[in-house]
Amino acid sequence: MDAAAEAVRHARAHRGRTLDRLTRLLRYPTVSADPRHAKDMSACATWLARTLRRIGLADVTVYRGRVAPVVTGVWQGRPGRPTVLVYGHYDVQPTGPLSAWASDPFRSARVGPHLYARGASDDKGQLMAHLAAIEAWLATAGSLPVNLRLVLDGEEEIGSPTLISAVSRGWPPLAADVAFVSDTWMLRPGSPVLVTGLRGAVRARLELSGPATDLHAGAFGGAVANPAAALARLVAGLHDKTGRIAVAGFYDRVRTIAGKERDRLARAAPSDAVMLGPAQVTAGHGEPGFSAFERVTHRPAIVVTNLSGSGQGRAVVPARAAADLNVRLVADQEPATVAQALWRHFRVRMPPGVRGRLTIMAGCPPYTLDPCAPVVSAVNSACRKVYGRDAVQLPSGGSIPFVSMLAAVRRTDVALCGFGLPDDRVHSANERLYLPNLFHGTELCIELYRQLATEVNRTDQAGVSRRR
Amino acid sequence: MDAAAEAVRHARAHRGRTLDRLTRLLRYPTVSADPRHAKDMSACATWLARTLRRIGLADVTVYRGRVAPVVTGVWQGRPGRPTVLVYGHYDVQPTGPLSAWASDPFRSARVGPHLYARGASDDKGQLMAHLAAIEAWLATAGSLPVNLRLVLDGEEEIGSPTLISAVSRGWPPLAADVAFVSDTWMLRPGSPVLVTGLRGAVRARLELSGPATDLHAGAFGGAVANPAAALARLVAGLHDKTGRIAVAGFYDRVRTIAGKERDRLARAAPSDAVMLGPAQVTAGHGEPGFSAFERVTHRPAIVVTNLSGSGQGRAVVPARAAADLNVRLVADQEPATVAQALWRHFRVRMPPGVRGRLTIMAGCPPYTLDPCAPVVSAVNSACRKVYGRDAVQLPSGGSIPFVSMLAAVRRTDVALCGFGLPDDRVHSANERLYLPNLFHGTELCIELYRQLATEVNRTDQAGVSRRR
Repeated sequence: MDAAAEAVRHARAHRGRTLDRLTRLLRYPTVSADPRHAKDMSACATWLARTLRRIGLADVTVYRGRVAPVVTGVWQGRPGRPTVLVYGHYDVQPTGPLSAWASDPFRSARVGPHLYARGASDDKGQLMAHLAAIEAWLATAGSLPVNLRLVLDGEEEIGSPTLISAVSRGWPPLAADVAFVSDTWMLRPGSPVLVTGLRGAVRARLELSGPATDLHAGAFGGAVANPAAALARLVAGLHDKTGRIAVAGFYDRVRTIAGKERDRLARAAPSDAVMLGPAQVTAGHGEPGFSAFERVTHRPAIVVTNLSGSGQGRAVVPARAAADLNVRLVADQEPATVAQALWRHFRVRMPPGVRGRLTIMAGCPPYTLDPCAPVVSAVNSACRKVYGRDAVQLPSGGSIPFVSMLAAVRRTDVALCGFGLPDDRVHSANERLYLPNLFHGTELCIELYRQLATEVNRTDQAGVSRRR
Repeated sequence: MDAAAEAVRHARAHRGRTLDRLTRLLRYPTVSADPRHAKDMSACATWLARTLRRIGLADVTVYRGRVAPVVTGVWQGRPGRPTVLVYGHYDVQPTGPLSAWASDPFRSARVGPHLYARGASDDKGQLMAHLAAIEAWLATAGSLPVNLRLVLDGEEEIGSPTLISAVSRGWPPLAADVAFVSDTWMLRPGSPVLVTGLRGAVRARLELSGPATDLHAGAFGGAVANPAAALARLVAGLHDKTGRIAVAGFYDRVRTIAGKERDRLARAAPSDAVMLGPAQVTAGHGEPGFSAFERVTHRPAIVVTNLSGSGQGRAVVPARAAADLNVRLVADQEPATVAQALWRHFRVRMPPGVRGRLTIMAGCPPYTLDPCAPVVSAVNSACRKVYGRDAVQLPSGGSIPFVSMLAAVRRTDVALCGFGLPDDRVHSANERLYLPNLFHGTELCIELYRQLATEVNRTDQAGVSRRR
């Protein structure tokens, strides 16, 4: 039996322990967007560091981040072999209204093959597959087939400010020949996907203010500019009636989808019915002339994620109103250019009596995988071993800011191969993980580490050992 | 010294007690819109009943209401004299964000001549003037100059559902020859206003729903209808670019302002600068061709009081979004017709993939005082006595549902003469009462009770004593 098979056998024998660890990890309410959870972020980072040591990584560090710590684990026992950067994130999206959850989002609940909890799929469950794979290699072979830099982010859901600045600064712990990230989806159980592209994102908040205070709706209604009404008009103006974005210059740098790629997607990508199934909508809606899959992967979108006002149930002309926007970008759009176009759009339409401010909370460029990158064949080899088939190569509509920046700044190829499913309800209430994916995912990690060892070339950018 | 002068002297000697009572009344957080305050409503009603007995009314009742109790006090010691219905309300608007308040909204704070608290002006301070006036009459003359039915509402801010149904049913405690309500404004200290009209109101909530759950903004953004974006479009469509309401048929029954009335308002009503001063806006905004005062009194308005969505700070396509609308009506608009026009407007514009619902929370018609009603001369006589001048006759932009219904159903004339000031910040943070207005207002009540005794005719609709 070869070393990888030994490691797989070990992982299978210890599935219970992996599940216990995940259950514990899911108990930390690591909502990075909410400053009240700062202590939970630290506590979770400490627990992760302890766990990394327990699975056999000696060189573990907890770095202080802008909002939450970054936890790293380094193993460099294979001089001459490539260095793989494994990235995952332990922060989660806010829960939203608890009434929408069938069980406590931070007390995981097992129902049949699913584990329900905030972060179960995005991304605590997926990073746990890597921990189990690392542990299996170290417990059986006493070594990993590659050099490893494990980076666990606590700020992914808020745009990874600490790591993005670290990438730009050339922070040594991020030096690697290749990266492997599991924070994406499979088409269905047994059908792995190599993600070939991610959308970029700009998270922005448009805030309007009018009167100095909320005003009696009877005494002032009809005589002063209303920020809530003005907000509705500005937000409505973002799209035309067909669903196409109406911001001047917005589509300027968007690439046309090649005919060959459209044909391939028509065969390989999920149909509109499959795509929209989890949304339980009768029909899709968006830019005319594209399938649902094309709309979320090859076309940009401006998503109004929330609207709010200072009225709060009172009969007033509210003094303030705000819209939260999540803009998803595709190649070759740039976050800064798009943010400027947005602000220009709002500024020229700002009605008299209302002042506006657009705050850019975070931004990351889109990511596109080089189709000739060695990770493609490495992922396929591993997938054939575990799933008996190549990975389907598909772009994703999601964004992983760190991945985009790593590719843009350091030109690192990233193997984006994850274990989520389309109906995991990530970011929504009742998020869940399909547990067989955790266990098969662990085996894929075990295999892919080995494939990367042979199929990826060492480059000069990686390997602190060589620089010493 | 005549009896009224004796009562005034008594009221002046007991200003401290009146102020103490008001301070106590303001401590009850009587937010009728918030079910969590149900116990506070009951406790306040009990306290009010005890206070009514203490000021000399023997016949006091606390009636159970739909949301909050109605407290009544009856005095009928003047057979042959008219019966005056005095109406006030002890419920208040929600506080809104506490951070906007300089002091606790339910612990009144005295700063110079002002008392700051939620309800200080609207309407606890104003109803307290009536209690002080009644007490002064009973303590000095041992009687009132008129028969009295005092009705204290706990549901005014939510449309007075209990009393409006009572008016329609012909509830005996509401039978009166004339009504006197202090829940309105003066132009400035010393310059009383007889309010000649109130706007009607329709409180409505437009709720849109799209996907079954909130959806990941990356995975679905651009491919499904977004209820928040649809809401913005529907709300934006309520007005055209000039600020005129764009709902078909909305202005059909609105009366043109007569040229003579416009001339009079130009002289007597507050200028745009004075009207908009408390709003601290540089310029008014509204239907073209009207002054700010005309816009809030003679013209209807659709006020967007709030916008909300289910996103709550998450990167999602929200499953639901809602707009709260406060529509202010003028003669001869009808709430039901306007509600239908609104729904028709939204329904034909509802985009595919989004379902909408318009809930009408409350509605009341506009009110217009008959210029020949005897209350006009009674108010002027009382104002000359207390303020040395006639009341200025002006319509108001506000709404008092009970007043509108009393006039519409029972044809009761209402003397609307209040003690608020334009900068009292009613419905907003840091609401306040100008205390000299409380004391002069008490004297106006003392005088007006006497004037109503002689200037108003008894009609057949009033007087339980006669029916017995």
